[in-house]
Amino acid sequence: MNSVEVVFSPALLQYYTVENKIVVVIDILRATSSICVAFQHGALRILPVETVNECSAFRNQDFLCAAERDGQVVEGFDIGNSPFSYMGDHINGKSIVLTTTNGTIAIHMARNAYQVVIGSFLNLSYLCNWLRNQNRDVILLCAGWKNKFNLEDTLFAGAVVAALRNDFNINCDSAIVAEDLYALAAADLYKYVQKSSHSHRFEDLGIKEDVAYCMQTDIMEVIPVLEGDYLVKLKAKIPA
Amino acid sequence: MNSVEVVFSPALLQYYTVENKIVVVIDILRATSSICVAFQHGALRILPVETVNECSAFRNQDFLCAAERDGQVVEGFDIGNSPFSYMGDHINGKSIVLTTTNGTIAIHMARNAYQVVIGSFLNLSYLCNWLRNQNRDVILLCAGWKNKFNLEDTLFAGAVVAALRNDFNINCDSAIVAEDLYALAAADLYKYVQKSSHSHRFEDLGIKEDVAYCMQTDIMEVIPVLEGDYLVKLKAKIPA
Repeated sequence: MNSVEVVFSPALLQYYTVENKIVVVIDILRATSSICVAFQHGALRILPVETVNECSAFRNQDFLCAAERDGQVVEGFDIGNSPFSYMGDHINGKSIVLTTTNGTIAIHMARNAYQVVIGSFLNLSYLCNWLRNQNRDVILLCAGWKNKFNLEDTLFAGAVVAALRNDFNINCDSAIVAEDLYALAAADLYKYVQKSSHSHRFEDLGIKEDVAYCMQTDIMEVIPVLEGDYLVKLKAKIPA
Repeated sequence: MNSVEVVFSPALLQYYTVENKIVVVIDILRATSSICVAFQHGALRILPVETVNECSAFRNQDFLCAAERDGQVVEGFDIGNSPFSYMGDHINGKSIVLTTTNGTIAIHMARNAYQVVIGSFLNLSYLCNWLRNQNRDVILLCAGWKNKFNLEDTLFAGAVVAALRNDFNINCDSAIVAEDLYALAAADLYKYVQKSSHSHRFEDLGIKEDVAYCMQTDIMEVIPVLEGDYLVKLKAKIPA
């Protein structure tokens, strides 16, 4: 039986073997939620880069440049990390270059995996159905906040563990804890997430609507996957 | 108001400021439980060292040499990491040199803190009463398992957060999660810990009794504290 493990911080990924495994990168507030939204709205490809400088280099090319640091759009950039910025005609058919405080760094750290995919509550069930059919070990990588543990990424990891429990071997304390936490929070995810430090930070930034949006479950059938340097929409057919 | 933060792995301590804070090192199964037992049984001092080689160097000196790796006594050493090895006349008045898989490494990583103390369920309330009277920020450092998250250390951190909640500022996702997890497990800690990967490892090693012993709450009034290179018994008077 294949295994599911949960890693609570990119800084801990070095203690796990990623080769031959699928790594699901999780940055619920907001990078991986927004990446799902972008592909749902027809984005062609997304280039995740680690630094704002790398992102700047794509100005004046045919890219939409998105940069977020500490929850805000970096000055001089088109858009940041809000899911609402990735909806509409300006996204359809576009190439996007994206750098965020946590999520894009986590994607880079995972790149030695067999496959890197993107998870969020928005595509939860669709992603889990796909994972169930891959016959591979899975690592759920929480992007956290500047390498620290965070609550909302853990909740999502717990939701995936709960969904995969019957088909995977779960022998990892972080997976056990994430699942129990999700069970505690599942009845009202949005309310539970209000406890988080990140959520307070977001209230201060006036982006509560982003949090509410990102806590919606199963509103799209899309799996972003890393192919070379780019995230693209997975084309594989997924059994119901 | 002073703050309490929880760090789930020694590998994450670098992202926190420890200077001017009290760090509580937590390795419930079994290093920090056994260290408490040793002082309860009259140990004079304990020298935590990182490697088995360093520990070996104290042979033929007036030290009791204790070394554990992967849950077992290292060949050629007097004792390992079992709390039952730290009870009785052979401990009273003794200097001990100790190396373990996780706990002693965590103690070393915390040494730049204002003060490093040792926590376990065995001294939970006594430790919390003391922390409440120090007027300092507190970091609860889980030793984990080879830098990975573990369940039992997290439960203990949650027990401390629950005890300190009214007197400290808690704005750290790992503290919030640890506290919720403890609430879930508190009615039967031993049963909950059986879910952990570490507990399975211990069953295989035939040391289930150690797990049961270490899950006992408030059976001793002792706080081991790092003074220079040595752990000693804290002499400060603690208000009831």
